[in-house]
Amino acid sequence: MRSDCPLNFGLEIFGDKWTLLIIRDLMFFGKRYYGEFLESEEGISTNILADRLAMLEKQKIIVKKKSSTHKQKYIYSLTQKGIDLLPVIITIGLWSDQYATKLNPHRDIIIGEAKKNYTKGLQVVTKRLQQAHLQERD
Amino acid sequence: MRSDCPLNFGLEIFGDKWTLLIIRDLMFFGKRYYGEFLESEEGISTNILADRLAMLEKQKIIVKKKSSTHKQKYIYSLTQKGIDLLPVIITIGLWSDQYATKLNPHRDIIIGEAKKNYTKGLQVVTKRLQQAHLQERD
Repeated sequence: MRSDCPLNFGLEIFGDKWTLLIIRDLMFFGKRYYGEFLESEEGISTNILADRLAMLEKQKIIVKKKSSTHKQKYIYSLTQKGIDLLPVIITIGLWSDQYATKLNPHRDIIIGEAKKNYTKGLQVVTKRLQQAHLQERD
Repeated sequence: MRSDCPLNFGLEIFGDKWTLLIIRDLMFFGKRYYGEFLESEEGISTNILADRLAMLEKQKIIVKKKSSTHKQKYIYSLTQKGIDLLPVIITIGLWSDQYATKLNPHRDIIIGEAKKNYTKGLQVVTKRLQQAHLQERD
């Protein structure tokens, strides 16, 4: 905690090149297991991944539970606090969409809804995430 | 460039704990000179500041010009590409406002307008920034 500035508060938590990519994977690519995050094309290392997952859990942005179908595995879910990071992800995606010369198909998956209508798009995706992450399931 | 994902594109540029604080200072605290950025309470070091300013200039997010009033100094301005980072700053601020237990008066300065009305607030601040940064002045 370097200051009590609201921008600094957020950056102290997710202001690095990796944390929001994990959130992205949880939000848009249905990744819920440790091994799935490791497979993302940016090539996160296992020690950074373990560090960030532990931090996100401590910050109550994600929760970790024993998987009911794979007893030896943990399943990760977003909390409401984590789902509320959606506008941060979307605004970064929209900025990139405006200024990057080349983007992969993640574009449509991540910002498709919000590009049509920002407010409504956020609502649609938030609801989808709440159904997938906040309910008891596996 | 680790991938062509739109989230990764943005994070490769400003996904660190310092870059968006410099943008914040330009956007909300009228800071335009090197020495002014150094004075922010988070205590950025001069080597990190110099590195990030050079990167932001290379990315055309800011421009550097000789000051007309202080010939030995450079004045930094946001470009439209830089001003378009406003929603990223604001959504981080709004998330922090929701989840931080303690925030300093930056809160009202940064997210005051957007909290009243997100869309209108962004328009108001964008216009203010365009007037302060995109026109020939010093």
